[in-house]
Parts: sequence; C-alpha cells; structure tokens
Amino acid sequence: MSDLSDAAKRLLLGRPVRSDRLGHTLLPKRIALPVFASDALSSVAYAPDEILLTLSLAGMAALVISPWVGLAVVVVMLVVVASYRQNVHAYPSGGGDYEVATTNLGKNAGVTVASALLVDYVLTVAVSISSGAQYAATAIPALRGNEAVFAIGLVVLLTVVNLRGVKESGSLFALPVYLFMLAIGSLAVIGALQMLTGNLAMAESAGLELAPDAAFDQGLTGLAGFFLILRAFSSGCAALTGVEAISNGVPAFKKPKSKNAATTLALLGLLSITMIMSILLLARATGVVFADDPETQLLENGQPVGAGYEQHPVISQLSSAVFQSVPFVAVLVSVVTGLILVFAANTAFNGFPVLGSILARDGYLPRQLHTRGDRLAYSNGIVTLALVAIVLIWAFDAEVTRLIQLYIVGVFVSFTVSQLGMVRHWTRHLRTEPDPTRRTQMKRSRIINAVGLTMTATVLVVVLITKFTHGAWIAILAMVVIYVIMQSIHRHYALVREELALGTDTESARALPSRVHAIVLVSHLHRPTMRALAYARASRPQILEAVTVSVDPEDVDALREQWETLAIPVPLRVLDSPFREITRPVLTYVRSIRRESPRDLVVVYIPEYVVGHWWEHLLHNQSALRLKGRLLFTPGVVVASVPWQLASSEGQTGLEEPVRGTVPRGY
Amino acid sequence: MSDLSDAAKRLLLGRPVRSDRLGHTLLPKRIALPVFASDALSSVAYAPDEILLTLSLAGMAALVISPWVGLAVVVVMLVVVASYRQNVHAYPSGGGDYEVATTNLGKNAGVTVASALLVDYVLTVAVSISSGAQYAATAIPALRGNEAVFAIGLVVLLTVVNLRGVKESGSLFALPVYLFMLAIGSLAVIGALQMLTGNLAMAESAGLELAPDAAFDQGLTGLAGFFLILRAFSSGCAALTGVEAISNGVPAFKKPKSKNAATTLALLGLLSITMIMSILLLARATGVVFADDPETQLLENGQPVGAGYEQHPVISQLSSAVFQSVPFVAVLVSVVTGLILVFAANTAFNGFPVLGSILARDGYLPRQLHTRGDRLAYSNGIVTLALVAIVLIWAFDAEVTRLIQLYIVGVFVSFTVSQLGMVRHWTRHLRTEPDPTRRTQMKRSRIINAVGLTMTATVLVVVLITKFTHGAWIAILAMVVIYVIMQSIHRHYALVREELALGTDTESARALPSRVHAIVLVSHLHRPTMRALAYARASRPQILEAVTVSVDPEDVDALREQWETLAIPVPLRVLDSPFREITRPVLTYVRSIRRESPRDLVVVYIPEYVVGHWWEHLLHNQSALRLKGRLLFTPGVVVASVPWQLASSEGQTGLEEPVRGTVPRGY
Repeated sequence: MSDLSDAAKRLLLGRPVRSDRLGHTLLPKRIALPVFASDALSSVAYAPDEILLTLSLAGMAALVISPWVGLAVVVVMLVVVASYRQNVHAYPSGGGDYEVATTNLGKNAGVTVASALLVDYVLTVAVSISSGAQYAATAIPALRGNEAVFAIGLVVLLTVVNLRGVKESGSLFALPVYLFMLAIGSLAVIGALQMLTGNLAMAESAGLELAPDAAFDQGLTGLAGFFLILRAFSSGCAALTGVEAISNGVPAFKKPKSKNAATTLALLGLLSITMIMSILLLARATGVVFADDPETQLLENGQPVGAGYEQHPVISQLSSAVFQSVPFVAVLVSVVTGLILVFAANTAFNGFPVLGSILARDGYLPRQLHTRGDRLAYSNGIVTLALVAIVLIWAFDAEVTRLIQLYIVGVFVSFTVSQLGMVRHWTRHLRTEPDPTRRTQMKRSRIINAVGLTMTATVLVVVLITKFTHGAWIAILAMVVIYVIMQSIHRHYALVREELALGTDTESARALPSRVHAIVLVSHLHRPTMRALAYARASRPQILEAVTVSVDPEDVDALREQWETLAIPVPLRVLDSPFREITRPVLTYVRSIRRESPRDLVVVYIPEYVVGHWWEHLLHNQSALRLKGRLLFTPGVVVASVPWQLASSEGQTGLEEPVRGTVPRGY
Repeated sequence: MSDLSDAAKRLLLGRPVRSDRLGHTLLPKRIALPVFASDALSSVAYAPDEILLTLSLAGMAALVISPWVGLAVVVVMLVVVASYRQNVHAYPSGGGDYEVATTNLGKNAGVTVASALLVDYVLTVAVSISSGAQYAATAIPALRGNEAVFAIGLVVLLTVVNLRGVKESGSLFALPVYLFMLAIGSLAVIGALQMLTGNLAMAESAGLELAPDAAFDQGLTGLAGFFLILRAFSSGCAALTGVEAISNGVPAFKKPKSKNAATTLALLGLLSITMIMSILLLARATGVVFADDPETQLLENGQPVGAGYEQHPVISQLSSAVFQSVPFVAVLVSVVTGLILVFAANTAFNGFPVLGSILARDGYLPRQLHTRGDRLAYSNGIVTLALVAIVLIWAFDAEVTRLIQLYIVGVFVSFTVSQLGMVRHWTRHLRTEPDPTRRTQMKRSRIINAVGLTMTATVLVVVLITKFTHGAWIAILAMVVIYVIMQSIHRHYALVREELALGTDTESARALPSRVHAIVLVSHLHRPTMRALAYARASRPQILEAVTVSVDPEDVDALREQWETLAIPVPLRVLDSPFREITRPVLTYVRSIRRESPRDLVVVYIPEYVVGHWWEHLLHNQSALRLKGRLLFTPGVVVASVPWQLASSEGQTGLEEPVRGTVPRGY
C-alpha cells in the first residue's frame, strides 16, 4: 500500500526538491505579476456586476451612477496601494500584515490580522472559483445547475497543481493572466474608439426595463437610497482584495525583493483601476441592464422575462457588443475571463500556506503546517485551504452574490490594523533616526499610512454596516473562532514548553533508574515471542520475566507445559483475569512493581506483527495496540515494540520509493 | 476522553461481570422460552399475511385455500422440531448446526452452514423489526412513511439492551412474550367460541373484492397456479425460523441443558402451530381480504380502493372483529404483537454473537469477535449484527414483503446440511454402539433426521425455485461472499500460524543478538529527552548514541552547544536531511548499522508525549508516530517508546473506572 501511495504521490507531485534548490524557485517580476496580481485583476469579472446588481434594486435610474461608485472604489484602491508600497519596503520578510501588526501592536493584534487573512484567503478561493464556474456555465450550457460540483473539481485541480510547487504553477499561470490583460485592454480601447466614432453597439440587455424593489420605488432618494449606494460601494471594494497577497509574498520575489514587489504592486493598482473604470463606463455606454434577480426584476414590454432569460456577466455582454462583427473574439474574452478567475484562486494557494507556516512557526497553529512537503510547497496548508474552500462552495452552492457578502470584511480588518501598525512603525523609527533625508522620507510614509488608515477604517465601518446581516457575520464569527483556537494552541504549546523545560535542576533529570525490570508479554510460544525473549535477554536487565494473562485456563496450562519442555531460561508469571481482559491485569501488575520499587525502570516488551495489507490490521495486534496505549500513561515505563515482519510485509521497506538522481540505485 | 467514554459505557452497559459469575446468567426454561422462542412465535405476525397476499394474486377464490397452505407449513414445522430435538440432545455445546455440520461433514460444510446462519440472523433482525415498525405505524399514524427511521432506532435500542448482557435482556423480554401468547390465545379461543355460537363478526376488509393479477385470471389452475401456491408456502415457511436459535443457544439453558432445550423446542413448536392455524382459520371465517398491492388490487363496488385505503395486518383485522365490543382489547392485541416483533429480533442478538464467537475461535472471523465484553456479552458480534441489519433496513426501506424474499433461504440451507450431518452422526455412532436399547434409540433418531433431511431439502428446493428472482439471490450472494471471506481469513490465520511456529529448530530462535546498539532520538534538549537518555543509559547497551536530524542548521548548532554545556555523557550524531524529512534519514542510518553489524540489535528510543485530550494528538507526536510505524518494517530493530506524561494526562490512569465491590476502594 505504501509503495502504491508513494508512486501516486510522485505522479501527482513530481520529484521531491532538495532544500538547497529553494533559491531557484524565486519569481522574476514578469512571473510574479501574474501570480500575485491575478486575484485583484480578476475581481473586475464580478466587482462591476455586483455594483450594478446592488444598484438595480433602485431601478433604471440608479444604474447610471455606477461609474461614480466605481470612482469611489478607485480612490480607495489608490490610497491602499500607496500605503502598501510603504509596507513592502518596511517589512520585506513576507509576514505582511501579520508581521506589521505583531511588531508594532503586539501579538494579539497579529493574531487578529492572521485570523482575518486566513478567512479571506478561503473566501478568495471560494468566490473566484464560483465566479469562474459561472462564466464556464455561460459558455457550456451542460454545466448549468452543476456549478458547485464543477467548482469543487476546479479546487481539487488547483490543489494538485500547487502541491507540485510554486514555480511551475507560476509559469503555468503567467500566460492566461497576460491574455486576460490583453482581452480587457482590447475591449476597453476598441470600445472607446467605437464610442468616439459613434459605432458602439448596444448590449443584449439594453432594451430591458428594471422593476425596482418595493423598498426603493422612489429610486436612490433618502437614507435607504444612500445605504444602497454604500452597499454597492462595499461590494465593489472586492476589487481591493489581492493587494495584501503581494505584501505577504515578498520573499518569493527576485532581488531586490522589496523594490520589485512595490513596482508590481503599483502596476497592479494601475491595471486594476483602468479595468474597473473601463468596464463600468462601457456598461453605461452600451446600456447594460443587470439585476440581482433577473427572472422577476427584468421586464420586457412590461412583463417579467421569466426563468427562460439568461443573464450573462457584464464582461460577456460587453464583449458581445464591442466584438459584434467577430463573435469568435467575443467568446474568447469570456473564456479568458473565466479562466483567469479560476487561476486567481491561485493567489490564495500561494499566500495561505506561507501565512499558515509562519503561524505554525510562532506556535499558533499545529506544527505540521510548518513542515515543508516534498516539493517545497507547504503541503498541509494547501490541503487545509482547499478543504475549507470546498465546504464553503458546497454550502453556498457556488453562488457569487451570496459568497461576496462574507468577503472583504477580513481584508479590511487586516488593512486597518496593518495601517495602524505602520503609523506606529514610522513613529517609533522617527524617534531614533538622525538622518534628515531619511526622516523626511519616513514622515512622508507616515502621512501616507495615516491616510490609508483613515480610509480603510472608514471602508471597514461601511462594509460592516451594510453587509453584517447579509452574511458578513459568518465571516466575523469564523474570525473569532479562528482567533480563539489560535490563542488556545499558543497557550497549549507555551504550557507544554514550560513543562518540558530543563530549568536549572539538570541533576535530577540526569538521575538513572536504579534497576531495569523487564517484562516480556507472552500469549503463545511462537517465533515472535522467542524473538522478544531473545531481545529482552540481550539487553541484560536486572530482573527479567515473561508474563501471560490467564483468560482461558487450558491455554495457560498448555503454555506452561511448552515453556518447561523447551526449558526457556526466563520465569513465566501468570496473571489472573476475572473479567477476561488483557489490559487491566498487565497494568495492575506493572503498577505494583512501580509501587514496590519506585526507582526501578519497567520495560515492557510487546511482540507486534508488521503486516503488509491494511485489512490484516483487523486480524492482528488489536490487544497489543490497546495495551500499548494504556501502558504509556504509567510513569517509569518504557514500551518496547518487538516487530515480527509477516511474509505479507516483505518488499515493504518502510521507506518511500528511492529518488532518482539523488540516491544511488539499489538503495 | 478515556474517562468520559468509560463513564458513558458504564451508564449504557452497567457494571462489568466477573467470569466466575458466568453460571449465574444461565436461563431457566420460563425465561429461555420467551428469549429463544420469540422469533418463531412472532412470525405469526407476518407469515399468515404473506401467505394471503401471495395467494391474493390469483383472486378471491385462492384465498380460501390458505389454511391448507398453513397445514403444509405445520407439517414441515412438526418434522423440523422433531429433528432438532435430536440435535440438541446430541450436540449440547451450542455450536448447533455449525458444529453438527463440521463434525459430521467436514469444515467446508460447517462454514457453509455458518454463512447461511449469519445471513439469516441479520434478516431475522431486519424482518422482525421492519414488521414491528409497520405494526407501530398502524397504531401511530405519525410514524407512517418513517418506518425505516423508526426501525433503525429500534435496532439501536436493542443493541444497547443486549450489550448490557443476556440475563437482564431475558427478564426484560419475558413479560411481553407471555402477553403475546395470552393475546393470540384469547383471540383464538374467543374467536372459536364466537364462531361456534354464530356471533363472529366479519373483518373490516370482508366486503372488498380482489382484482386478480393478469397472469392468474383463471385462478389457481395450471402450472402457474401451482407455483403460486408453492410461493405462498415458501413465504409461510418463515414461521420456521427460530428453531435453530434454540439449538445454537443450548449452553445458555440451565441444567439439564439438553433436556430443557428439547422441552422448550417442543413447546415452541406446539405454540407456533396452534397460533398460525388459528389465525389462518379465523381469517377465512371473518372473510379477511388481504392483497399484495391493496391500492390497485382491492375493489370496492368494482372500483380500486386507491391510496386512501389502509390495509391493516391480519392480526389487527382479526382482533378488531373478535373484540368488536371491547375496542381497547383489540388495540392491545395489535400493540402487543408489534412489541413482540421488535423483541423477536432479540433472538438473533442472542444467537449471532455466540456463533460469531465460535467462528472467531475456529479462526474464520477476526479474533476480536471472540473477546467477551464487560457484561459477558459478545459485544463486537452484537455491534456487527446491528450495523448490517441497519443497512438492510435502510436499503429495503423497512418493507417486510421485500425483505421476506431474502429470508429463510439461509435457514433451510442450514436445516438441510445439519440434518444430513445428523444422519451421518447416528450412522457413525451405530457402528460402535453395543447397547441394544441405545441402538434402538439411535436408529429411531436416524429415521427422524432422515425424514427431516428429505423434508427440509424439498422445502429448500421449493424456496430456491419460487423466490430466487424475487430476492433470494441477494441472500445467496451474501452467503457466498461471507463463505469466501471466512475461508480467506482462515487461510490467512493458518499461514501466519505456520510462519510463526517454532518448528523443530528452537535453537536458532534462542540465539541472542551479539550486541545492543541503542539510539536515542533527540529533537530538543528538554525533560522528555533527558528521561529517554537516562532510560537508555540504565539499560547499559554496548553502544549508545543520541541522534538528531538536521532540518534547520541553526537549530542543530543550538542543540550541539547545549549538549556540550550540559556535558551529556552520550555522543550526539547529526544526520543530514536534504529533503527536510525526519523519517528517511533515521531509517537509512538504522539500516546502515544493521548492514555493518547484522547480528547487532538496534534499539531506538523515541520520546513520546502522552496527552490527555484527543485534540492534543494533532499538536504533538506526528513525526514520532510516523517514524515508529516505518521503523517496525526493519528487521532486528526494537522501538522503545519513552512516554512523557503531559500535565493534561494527569488523573488518567489508562485503567478504566474501578469496579465497585470487586476491587478495593482507593485502588
């Protein structure tokens, strides 16, 4: 079995990579941009849609203000990008917001940020993949209704790719991201030219009317209207996620790491802003009508369009209009958009395991998450991320509009805490920095971060107010739970560390047990028992005895007789078992030895079968395993497993398949 | 956790029972009759129904012959009871048909019988509980449509009761069984009196017409009609199941075991025959019309009665008619019948674990099934039976008519093989028996068993022919699968036993390893490591070294420095790990020692944490456990776990809760 699973692992993950090759997996800018920017860029595939469908609740007139909402998002984006450029310069080690918060605001702030980011990474995967599945369903009608299953399949695929390691997935993802930039760029440029020359066609939904929600039959007037605009803005802020991915990923950049990361970040902001504004303006120009619930909200000749109507995503509608004369290109734009969304989830697959590993290193998560897998990827973190994302996609049936309500709370929590930390950072460094040039720089940075703090804190409040009851509470609850769990784990590790520490009294820890009292557990007199007896004798304990439990008196008599016939030079002790148990009499006996001679060490030798097939476990070792587990609770006892390799285990070495090229053949 | 689960176990199962109290759980006849006879008796709750609904396919006229079909069943019953009275006298040890077949016809015949019986025990539970659930649904309309869930709940309840041990469940079940006998007895006697005095009311379904199936529009004429009668007879033979339960349960009787068992068997046969004939005759007298598919088959004024019609079981219909003037008693009869069906499943809960344990003892099933639980019940067998029955009930949606098609094939396979075995048994004993009186007795017994063999073999053929395509093939397939699995397990244990046997060359098995090379695995220098070093030193191996794996060079340097500062008198060896693995470098090193000095014993000391909570396992020991599993594959290696009891494990003794009364307090 072990051989088979190793072979399968090898097939899926490729050959293991040596530690000293770690440097080779660093990313040049041209690869880092697509790897880390795909999340933020891809959000133009759903952020404009969410702005439009939120505004649609207030009817046709409301749709017209969508570019203004977009502009508000752009302003936030500019501020956040400027702020984070300060971060990557100040903290190039990849701890990102977590490190910034921990260093400047203390551990609890760090754990808060970490909880928020972990939740948001999961949501990045869930939202991007779900949106990608919806684009795919637009193109492939057979997928309609099965988006969730398809989305889960995509997550599994991404997981496998990422378990193979970061560099290969980087190259794999670079091309589609550039294709996407090209697609949206062409759409924007050609659409703008058509508009200027008066040749821009109308969108497929342009002829439809919108039936406003009963609550908004007066349009965007009053407090309700204002709140709706804020909600649209909140949804649009989904475009900002992904910025922090770069600040967490600085170590993956080629040197000079910080400078390259900052440049990539600026580039990303610029691209993102251009795309989102182009799409919103083009949507207004082509008259796109986009509704939350198209079946009932959209009217054709005064009647609802009904279940037969298929509402295509905004980018699909725009490309159909702009590339009317070349339908092939129109389809291509949709396909590339769908692809990029799937690939965007990869950002989280890069960021989440790194953060998980850092948290594990700091003792906030189980140590296994800090163990690098065969391919230098943080395998455990990748698998954890994938599993939770799959659960979310399943629970929300891959519906982007419902998932997006949970999204971005986490991002803005970490934005806000991190910016507060940065302000503190500069203040602290200004106290000791004598160089006037650098002081000026630092002061400028502090102002940028303070503006960032104000902005992100405001957005966080807006998001909380407008989205809490719509689903954000789930994300907040998840953060609180993760926060509590991480603090508990940290406390547990600290307690254990304290408990295990040598302290000053190293003498008592060195004290040797006065004698060794060895016990060999015997059920039958066969070769494994003989081996256990031989090994126990070879260790020359001061006291050595064989012990058997009397469950069936006839069996015991037979054993005694055989013992004498073979003249085995070890005394055989029989323990009574009125309740036909094996474990309890042995435990009781071991404890009685310990009670009589507390300074003795008791070594219990247990013959154990090593089997070759999983089902053989059901047929062997059950009593031995149970006893072993119980014996370990008794202080002063060592449990020595004496393995007997059954023929079925032959050929299984316990080693994984040897690695070609690094280990000599025949090994 | 261990404490909690022990407490829960104690609450559910009661206190454990000592082996020497085993004699106290033996059953007097007045308790044994209800415990072992409830299966056979309860089948009158569905066997007459199945006879009637099978005949109903051929229309009204066919129903009239139902008592004759019943009479055929009675004849088979008489013969089988007479035959099995010979069995319990000849084989009082409780192996029943399995033992008879194994002793007289060889192991393969024994395993065949065992497979058949195991399948049938499961079906006894499934059929009885499903029928009970249907009676319950007749009384409690809320259960209708949820019979399967209710039935599964009942199986779980029975499981808990039986895990508490056989005696208490015996007393628990005695009262309802006697109530049931009283109920059916009163029904028969009062009904007969009413008939004689001309006061017998007609049944609720008496006015209805039957629309015969298209295949039987000529009634019971021709070959098809004959086959239908045979099918009705086969279904009626369900009344015979339960006879073998007594022959498997002889050891649970009080002494004289065989005589008491034989008397109980005769009593059971008599009761069963009386009940089934009374019900069939009363059904004819009250004009009960009972259909396979009442909605379409039953006509009222020439029209199908439709989905609104509720077909009550025959016993319910009869008690409504007989106890017309006291509706309370009528309902009571139905309730008691429903109860007895549920309790009937208990017969299988007594028989299955005993058989499973015997099969485990003989090496046909995993050894765990031979382990008695705390309460002298064969816990593992009980749980296995319950799980499989639950799956069946779920799969067949608790429909008795579908489940009954699978039933009784197994019983008649074991009847037939067992009777063949008994004929051989007497023939063999007659060869050596000189006493003429006993020879006459034996010859009489042989004739009885030969008649039994002829009868059961005939019925088996009839059952196979009439039911194979209706579902019996599933039961046969299950038997074949179980047969193959049991033979494989037996072969596996035999191979292992051969592999482990000492043979004649006990000298080589005694050879001691020339030297002991001890290795202490070290990750950090804390108290568990110090303890492992101390224990290893106390065992005075010829070679002792500490070994650490270099995953992070900084950690290793720190460890080395601490090692020197504390002047630990054991050399520290550092193993390289280019792939950041722990397991492989250690394995490779151990194998290199074994290669250089093949006669040395390598003892690997692994410090291990003992934790108090299950979740702590996720935080500790992961690398150690993995390494241990792998090391055991290497010959000549002993893995010594040096436990370190974390504070959280305190108070957990590894022992279960002490037993009041048998172990001194404060223990």
